[in-house]
Amino acid sequence: MRITSQTTSDGVSERLFALDDIPGVIWSPSEGTAGRPLVLLGHGGGQHKKAEGLVARAHRYVKDCGFAVAAIDAPGHGDRPKVERHERLVADIRQRVARGEALGSHIARYNVVLAEQAVPEWRATLDALRELDHVGPVGYWGASMGGAIGVPLVAAEPRITAAVLGLTGHESLTEAARGITVPVEFLLQWDDEMVPREAGLALFDAFASPEKTLHANPGRHAGVPAFELDSSARFFTRHLLEAGGPAEVEGS
Amino acid sequence: MRITSQTTSDGVSERLFALDDIPGVIWSPSEGTAGRPLVLLGHGGGQHKKAEGLVARAHRYVKDCGFAVAAIDAPGHGDRPKVERHERLVADIRQRVARGEALGSHIARYNVVLAEQAVPEWRATLDALRELDHVGPVGYWGASMGGAIGVPLVAAEPRITAAVLGLTGHESLTEAARGITVPVEFLLQWDDEMVPREAGLALFDAFASPEKTLHANPGRHAGVPAFELDSSARFFTRHLLEAGGPAEVEGS
Repeated sequence: MRITSQTTSDGVSERLFALDDIPGVIWSPSEGTAGRPLVLLGHGGGQHKKAEGLVARAHRYVKDCGFAVAAIDAPGHGDRPKVERHERLVADIRQRVARGEALGSHIARYNVVLAEQAVPEWRATLDALRELDHVGPVGYWGASMGGAIGVPLVAAEPRITAAVLGLTGHESLTEAARGITVPVEFLLQWDDEMVPREAGLALFDAFASPEKTLHANPGRHAGVPAFELDSSARFFTRHLLEAGGPAEVEGS
Repeated sequence: MRITSQTTSDGVSERLFALDDIPGVIWSPSEGTAGRPLVLLGHGGGQHKKAEGLVARAHRYVKDCGFAVAAIDAPGHGDRPKVERHERLVADIRQRVARGEALGSHIARYNVVLAEQAVPEWRATLDALRELDHVGPVGYWGASMGGAIGVPLVAAEPRITAAVLGLTGHESLTEAARGITVPVEFLLQWDDEMVPREAGLALFDAFASPEKTLHANPGRHAGVPAFELDSSARFFTRHLLEAGGPAEVEGS
């Protein structure tokens, strides 16, 4: 892993890195502490490691929670070369959008192809990041394409002990979801034009995690309310910083 | 409204009151401030205004949020005389439980009967509480029976501007739910043995509120996780104390 630049702004250190041909970024409090939690951010389709929403989320987690936060460009995204096979799938999706077709299975097929490459890349990145900074417990946040990559990643990677996932749902993810047992906060947009409601509910149902919590909000795919950023910060704080499982309160 | 006793413990003032034949309790910070938010708590079936979970919730809202909090005994509950018609419905429900029957519609019928009486009682209580303490914005929290009463109450009572509801769902509530436009946080237990999952999801769907958020967690009816108490405190703080609606963040 090569650090290619380092800057500090508003108490947040930002280091760009390259691991072989994977470009990434790690944000952390400018004052170092070994053993702090690390949250991996998986960006959405067409976005990249420093998309506006990701940078804002990273700063929030660093400043309010004291976490280290990392993101990498997914295959064919950001600073990475286009991949011909991906481009064909994306072009096919764009044509179908233009024709007003339902998209669930086409996006899901594209995401399956991406995840085959992205999951081992994330695992190699995690190896390198742990060597770099001696981080502590690891969480993963990813919605939409970042969720579709996150499900098989979290299933495969035992070092990830809590995950916020969402805005995805397809039968291609069911088997991996059944292998996930760590706490999951799952985001679902009630009027998602890209993910059928039933598919999102079925994916939530499939997680084997004893603690999983579904947060469903009205609105379309890109309309997740801002309070869910707060909620995810508390979720990671609870699971990566604080000890012990949740107690129950009276429900009736 | 007659105050029948007043005690203070751990910075929380607790006043028992009677409004005609309705016994109730109001908790508040021992130091008075006019205009503080008031949260009404609707207890579950077979419970009462000072059930353990309600008292813990009230103390949490008073101490951490600075709210006033009130609860009353529902008809036929707590310190109130039994109502023959209710007792017959409850006896019928118990027999069906013993036979292992599905219960959704029987409990719903009982709740409809209760709500016809409980909704005007809550509204009269709110009149009296506002006169007593000059409270500010009003919220309602109620799950299970407290949710089934809460849906028609929140629909009917314009002074209630935010509600946490849940653990209920039945077609008898749909019309009232369609009349609710204030922010709602809705609790659903994914493996609820008393409320079919689809009925809970349909009730969430029916709320006309531009801001509504579904929190679904694994487990049975009484197994709501403790972190939902924290979440409700933040929800009420956001809507009863802080101004402005939620912004959106990037979803994909």
